[in-house]
Amino acid sequence: MMRVLAGFVFFLLAGYVQAFDYLQPLPPVPPSPADNQPTQAKIQLGKQLFFDSRLSYAGRTSCNHCHNILAGGSDGRPLSIGDSGQANKRHTPSLWNVAYQSVYFWDGRATSLELALQEHLLQTHVMGMPNKNTLVGRLKAIEGYAKAYQQVFTTDLTFDGIAKALSAYIRTLITPNSPFDRYIRGDKTALTDKQQRGMTLFREAQCLACHFGINFSGPAPGPAMNMGDGFYELFPNYRGTVYEKRLKIADDLGRYTVTGDPGHKLMWRVPSLRNIALSAPYFHNGSADSLQQAVTVMAATQRQRTLTAKEVDLLIAFLNSLTGEYPSQTMPLLPPTPNKAVP
Amino acid sequence: MMRVLAGFVFFLLAGYVQAFDYLQPLPPVPPSPADNQPTQAKIQLGKQLFFDSRLSYAGRTSCNHCHNILAGGSDGRPLSIGDSGQANKRHTPSLWNVAYQSVYFWDGRATSLELALQEHLLQTHVMGMPNKNTLVGRLKAIEGYAKAYQQVFTTDLTFDGIAKALSAYIRTLITPNSPFDRYIRGDKTALTDKQQRGMTLFREAQCLACHFGINFSGPAPGPAMNMGDGFYELFPNYRGTVYEKRLKIADDLGRYTVTGDPGHKLMWRVPSLRNIALSAPYFHNGSADSLQQAVTVMAATQRQRTLTAKEVDLLIAFLNSLTGEYPSQTMPLLPPTPNKAVP
Repeated sequence: MMRVLAGFVFFLLAGYVQAFDYLQPLPPVPPSPADNQPTQAKIQLGKQLFFDSRLSYAGRTSCNHCHNILAGGSDGRPLSIGDSGQANKRHTPSLWNVAYQSVYFWDGRATSLELALQEHLLQTHVMGMPNKNTLVGRLKAIEGYAKAYQQVFTTDLTFDGIAKALSAYIRTLITPNSPFDRYIRGDKTALTDKQQRGMTLFREAQCLACHFGINFSGPAPGPAMNMGDGFYELFPNYRGTVYEKRLKIADDLGRYTVTGDPGHKLMWRVPSLRNIALSAPYFHNGSADSLQQAVTVMAATQRQRTLTAKEVDLLIAFLNSLTGEYPSQTMPLLPPTPNKAVP
Repeated sequence: MMRVLAGFVFFLLAGYVQAFDYLQPLPPVPPSPADNQPTQAKIQLGKQLFFDSRLSYAGRTSCNHCHNILAGGSDGRPLSIGDSGQANKRHTPSLWNVAYQSVYFWDGRATSLELALQEHLLQTHVMGMPNKNTLVGRLKAIEGYAKAYQQVFTTDLTFDGIAKALSAYIRTLITPNSPFDRYIRGDKTALTDKQQRGMTLFREAQCLACHFGINFSGPAPGPAMNMGDGFYELFPNYRGTVYEKRLKIADDLGRYTVTGDPGHKLMWRVPSLRNIALSAPYFHNGSADSLQQAVTVMAATQRQRTLTAKEVDLLIAFLNSLTGEYPSQTMPLLPPTPNKAVP
């Protein structure tokens, strides 16, 4: 179990432990698990699967439906509507740069991207597949997938492999060269004066206590950082603000809902701040519809601090410097089932 | 009003009226209306709009959601689910090559692609916009769209212009060089022997009576062919087959539902056969889930003919020769609304 203090410990360690460096540029290639190393063919297969609504039970939902790669990696809604036609319980975060998360889902219940995808495929309000075999059977009946899978994995199509191919594609979704990244790599002109003052305030207000590391979301996975079951923080940290009720922040008990451990009540995986300007609305319930509101609420609930309008403005300027470059991508063509409808 | 006989008239005329040539290859560039000539900037704007779910009221539906360009131009479902969460009344046809249709929607109620798009944006079970101003206001608030629109149309953003830009993009969705096209242009090796025998049967069984012209859907628009309100045929033509009840073919009265003219009962725009192998399920209600079933039903209901299994096989072989090349496309990046949620 991780505690609130963990953030401070890392903050203090940051000076000399390189791997924990609290402000880090985005590396161009993220780590992949030993049992799911990427190849071009695997990535291409995963990309097709990502855009294919046949992966959902009713055939009305692709991964891209909620995690829109053409936009900020989300769908801009407070809560997404999955294959069942029902809204999800929690807000859809951006998929860009998730390769650098230590755990997945707002409550961190998946310890790898592969496990997160396996769960998503079977969730009623996401892809809605009733069981693994239904999906495997459907994809096996699509000749293009059966062949591509065989070439990539040299076995018959499996549920695990589908999640692996999807993960391999998702790990390519990296947005490099944000003004912040260029600045921290040495180009001191990359940030405006206002953004630099915003960064100073970001440090001074101790936003970094939680939002540090490559993704501004705590430690990234890797051999130097064995986080066990992830890095979590309390939200709201200070109870009883005017925002708590208004935005229903504390209605969802976070990690407690999966572990049942009372110490996990209101504990959450720290969301990334990369491209945050492009992924409104905010919070686990999508209740803050502007960055201005999100910054104001976070200062109040996490630092018991009332920001001036000018301070909010500076922080927003800095947060906008975290918007990277979205690489141009070719649309995949999805393998057909000639002469017949979705199997 | 067009009558069943119209098809036969064109069939007879086909020999000497060039524009009505009953078997025609797909030209590389389709016609555009005089008031909506394409430019690269307009097409690019239309492409962004096409993939943008903010064009739907609840923000859960893009044009691509039902007309999946990455697949056959449809969603593979009998009936699509639009922004309201409710199923549409009629099946979603492919968008590829629709530039060559004379009228739009199954009942032909829209006499141009632009008018079809205007209606789609406001239909509850499609994009669900309550009125034109809601959409215009939303897109105007997205700086990238406001700017691009101004550059393309040199006016402020309007509802008509949105439909024009979308139409300009959709008219680029052309699938050239099918085996059939290569064959009819002179490459006699482009069709297999079986496909050639299928083509002979296609003529002999008079499928061409309705499925002729560039798109195998009757006359295409153009100065030589002023079809007025379109080209329609009766389906089912012969009543009382076993399929009529089983597939509920005659439950929807077709063009009659928009004109109220008793002569229009069960009259339908003739659907294109291009890429038909990739756009199952079939018919206005999506009730036929294989090409085998669709061919069998059509022969029975339109020609009062029971095909042998071998004949069905030959026709399917020919129909598979109508699958063209889907051009590679770059995914557009959608203009963001930095720091705030969908306006």
